[in-house]
Amino acid sequence: MVKEVGFIGLGTMGGPMANNLLAAGHSLTVRDLDDDAVTAAVASGASRADSSRGAAAAADVVICMLPSSPHVVAAAYGDDGFISGLRPGATVIDMSTIDPDTTRRVAEDVQAAGGRMLYAPVSGSSAGAIDGTLTIMVGGEAGVFESHLDLFNVLGANVIHCGPVGMGETVKLANQLSAGVSMVGVAEGFAFGLSKGVDPKVLFEVMSKSSGNCWALETRCPVPGVLADSPASNGFAAGFMTDLMHKDLGLAMTAASNDKLPLHMAALARERYAAASRAGYGHMDFSAVAKLLEE
Amino acid sequence: MVKEVGFIGLGTMGGPMANNLLAAGHSLTVRDLDDDAVTAAVASGASRADSSRGAAAAADVVICMLPSSPHVVAAAYGDDGFISGLRPGATVIDMSTIDPDTTRRVAEDVQAAGGRMLYAPVSGSSAGAIDGTLTIMVGGEAGVFESHLDLFNVLGANVIHCGPVGMGETVKLANQLSAGVSMVGVAEGFAFGLSKGVDPKVLFEVMSKSSGNCWALETRCPVPGVLADSPASNGFAAGFMTDLMHKDLGLAMTAASNDKLPLHMAALARERYAAASRAGYGHMDFSAVAKLLEE
Amino acid sequence: MVKEVGFIGLGTMGGPMANNLLAAGHSLTVRDLDDDAVTAAVASGASRADSSRGAAAAADVVICMLPSSPHVVAAAYGDDGFISGLRPGATVIDMSTIDPDTTRRVAEDVQAAGGRMLYAPVSGSSAGAIDGTLTIMVGGEAGVFESHLDLFNVLGANVIHCGPVGMGETVKLANQLSAGVSMVGVAEGFAFGLSKGVDPKVLFEVMSKSSGNCWALETRCPVPGVLADSPASNGFAAGFMTDLMHKDLGLAMTAASNDKLPLHMAALARERYAAASRAGYGHMDFSAVAKLLEE
Amino acid sequence: MVKEVGFIGLGTMGGPMANNLLAAGHSLTVRDLDDDAVTAAVASGASRADSSRGAAAAADVVICMLPSSPHVVAAAYGDDGFISGLRPGATVIDMSTIDPDTTRRVAEDVQAAGGRMLYAPVSGSSAGAIDGTLTIMVGGEAGVFESHLDLFNVLGANVIHCGPVGMGETVKLANQLSAGVSMVGVAEGFAFGLSKGVDPKVLFEVMSKSSGNCWALETRCPVPGVLADSPASNGFAAGFMTDLMHKDLGLAMTAASNDKLPLHMAALARERYAAASRAGYGHMDFSAVAKLLEE
Repeated sequence: MVKEVGFIGLGTMGGPMANNLLAAGHSLTVRDLDDDAVTAAVASGASRADSSRGAAAAADVVICMLPSSPHVVAAAYGDDGFISGLRPGATVIDMSTIDPDTTRRVAEDVQAAGGRMLYAPVSGSSAGAIDGTLTIMVGGEAGVFESHLDLFNVLGANVIHCGPVGMGETVKLANQLSAGVSMVGVAEGFAFGLSKGVDPKVLFEVMSKSSGNCWALETRCPVPGVLADSPASNGFAAGFMTDLMHKDLGLAMTAASNDKLPLHMAALARERYAAASRAGYGHMDFSAVAKLLEE
Repeated sequence: MVKEVGFIGLGTMGGPMANNLLAAGHSLTVRDLDDDAVTAAVASGASRADSSRGAAAAADVVICMLPSSPHVVAAAYGDDGFISGLRPGATVIDMSTIDPDTTRRVAEDVQAAGGRMLYAPVSGSSAGAIDGTLTIMVGGEAGVFESHLDLFNVLGANVIHCGPVGMGETVKLANQLSAGVSMVGVAEGFAFGLSKGVDPKVLFEVMSKSSGNCWALETRCPVPGVLADSPASNGFAAGFMTDLMHKDLGLAMTAASNDKLPLHMAALARERYAAASRAGYGHMDFSAVAKLLEE
Repeated sequence: MVKEVGFIGLGTMGGPMANNLLAAGHSLTVRDLDDDAVTAAVASGASRADSSRGAAAAADVVICMLPSSPHVVAAAYGDDGFISGLRPGATVIDMSTIDPDTTRRVAEDVQAAGGRMLYAPVSGSSAGAIDGTLTIMVGGEAGVFESHLDLFNVLGANVIHCGPVGMGETVKLANQLSAGVSMVGVAEGFAFGLSKGVDPKVLFEVMSKSSGNCWALETRCPVPGVLADSPASNGFAAGFMTDLMHKDLGLAMTAASNDKLPLHMAALARERYAAASRAGYGHMDFSAVAKLLEE
Repeated sequence: MVKEVGFIGLGTMGGPMANNLLAAGHSLTVRDLDDDAVTAAVASGASRADSSRGAAAAADVVICMLPSSPHVVAAAYGDDGFISGLRPGATVIDMSTIDPDTTRRVAEDVQAAGGRMLYAPVSGSSAGAIDGTLTIMVGGEAGVFESHLDLFNVLGANVIHCGPVGMGETVKLANQLSAGVSMVGVAEGFAFGLSKGVDPKVLFEVMSKSSGNCWALETRCPVPGVLADSPASNGFAAGFMTDLMHKDLGLAMTAASNDKLPLHMAALARERYAAASRAGYGHMDFSAVAKLLEE
């Protein structure tokens, strides 16, 4: 069934996601501060909205894909915000990765305005957004989740209902904790091997079949030349940026510290990404954290 | 071709490895301080030696699989040591994970006694020793490696020549760095998710398909009941012991510190395993490090 | 010169501070949510206010000493807030330790209401509040600072003008970084010595005269019985609570992460205090972090 | 009473220590691999020995002040070693900071040769060696300690009997744990303050009177220009070298890991010093660890 979708945020993730929804036959009204991004989407068949309110007013489903909490707040509130434009019974699907306090506040205000809310953060890089192979972690009422499964299946290959509002983001951050930590572990393993004269291709061959294997190794072996299509072999072009990993680990640490849950390794990993950012690698792929260990 | 093998060390790893060699038709003379272990191997067709020297004297290939450097030194040296019993041109294959200084010393003394030396540490747990699916990382001369490939292929599924003597152990330790770090990352990810009320099976489903995936997750998800055959679901029975992970990370840290190579995350991971050991989990599987984060 | 002071927050710090101002002859109108605290101050000569607005309306100087940012926001804003009650040209002195965003917001709104603002966080525990020996780190205009030096000198023994608004808190957090890290270092030093059988009094004697000496050691040696008046010798009664150190390090980490400044040790120290809190030591003195290392 | 002392090791520490003993009237026979150092001591009144054995043969007390365990082993053993030259009943005082295994071995062999053994590691830098203000931590029999107190009092201002052989070194390493950790804490505090625009002299003024104070701050404030005579104000000239702090923390970590005692902060601090060494600061004062945080 064709749906009327208001799509807010056409960046490196949102842009290709909107394209996939258009290609699947849905009707999109799009909004972004960058006019070029809007023009490109319109060329693919979308309608242009001049405000978030306008995107919402034309739609039964409002999808947000924005970089951080302040962007979501700016898009949601005020005279031009999507809340003020919501159709009765419309669903807001926020796919941004934002902090839990903002999550709660926006969900309450959407519901107070007569709307329904899903949070659906994603895992995967821009390649996954283009290919429609994202992992999507959805929090919200089961019935609302199911009635939008057709949209999610266009955008992602793994779509999982994680529980009520908030659980999608929790699962996302738990995954980032593991990813962020294991990437530094891989980097240290390679730095150690190389410092002793091991051939990195031999090391990759062994580790990828052994207990040291992980997604970070298989997709992001941080030594140039080992994997042809890894960021390391392509100037550490992101992929998933160091600064975003730093941000996500920060969201997780803040949420954990509210419960006094000690996450020693994640706390330290976050500082390694801070160091990488300060060394100039913030906009590179997060595997560039390995460059800190080069001679 | 049937080979005459002296096999020293019949523990949880060495015992099943010796059995596999016997089953493949090789002739074994075995030695262990634990007489029950020797008796069991003899029941499977091995000959008994009363000393390491005796095991060597009956063989063209001497395989050691011992827990730590002092055990290897004790087996190698003295009137009852295997060096004093070496046949001319025999090959010693040490599959223990030991420190580089001992490695170098034993290799030199074996060569001075007319023997040839391979170091071939393994990755994988007792299940891999039983199934013959270990990863084996071999350091030594290429020709010597190739002439013993038949034995290695009985013991492991991934047999890799890593370079000269010492490179096998370096690769092994590099792999352990990644494995030891990523296990704690997985543990922190699950502790975070559970603290916020996520269903651990949902979390596993997402992480195993996302950027947080790793061997540690797939084989050792540290929450009981998620994976039927994980250590966590079986009282954290090892598998690969916490104390051995602590030991291996210590070997890596010592080797790295000689070059002043900073390995922040590995250093911290090692302390987490120390804490786990002190909490009473030293003989449990190393995924028991997650128990430190339970309420 | 006697000043008319509105004093908001009569807890373990604010209560004795208000008493000292009364004893120095100043006129106080006090406000706290805890009526017993207000009654005690009134018994010492203060006037009672029923709201923060009321405390401000009766005063030329409003002093706040509250536990955290939300408390300050609640006291500042709304019909009963102190901003709405400010006399023209009155000075607000916030001595709470709060986050920089709230700092900026309150300062702007006080100035918009015609007031002047100083931030003056303190270092020192309740004993320092009682004795009037706090270190007070003041940020704000130099002229405003100087005209309130008489009040500060009643409350503290070291009163330092650190620069414009915000610099007082920065200096406070920089100091907490050092204090929070060194306390864990002392704890690890003692855990190490005790594990090897050293007499803790001998260890204290040496360290207090050597390079390992620090305020944390001299005032908070974490082994019971070494110093008669340390928290450790008194059931770890605070002093300065573990949870407050955890909070302060969190404020510092958040402020540092905005600049991507990596603070490896502080990040880890914070997790140690989280672990201490979770182990039940959150309301004990922060030297109780040493209890994590007991057998 | 004048003593006949064999003094082995005339480096930045040992050289001035030997001078102080000469100035106090003792009779010294000295040995060093660096002939210039020997010549300088002879010019001050010492006799020259051509081997460690020679230095021992001429003395009732043999003092060693060498950089690391291998140097001590080289000086102790073999035909030219001091053990072979020991007079009956002579006392060996090793003031080097070395590993516990070597400690034990040398002590046993000295005693087997009819000698008595004290371990007496020191705290303090070359300035303390020159001024005779070292802290000296002595392990060994109380009677032997007391009969050499006259020598110790020439060399140090704080001389403490810490218990049997081994306790002196344990106390030394416990002190280094605290010193090594607190130095990085001070560095992070200053990096934070400076990143926010605080005047470093103001920050020093506050911290030195507050809970963040420590020996590392008072003697080694890591920002150039704050303290005139700090290493930071003098090109980070050591003082106590980064590489030696890295070594000492390594000795402590190895000793702690034998007991599975987790020392999270010390482990991480050690990696910070490794990073500092790799960045080229290994021969600078250990306060140069702060340079890692410069922009």
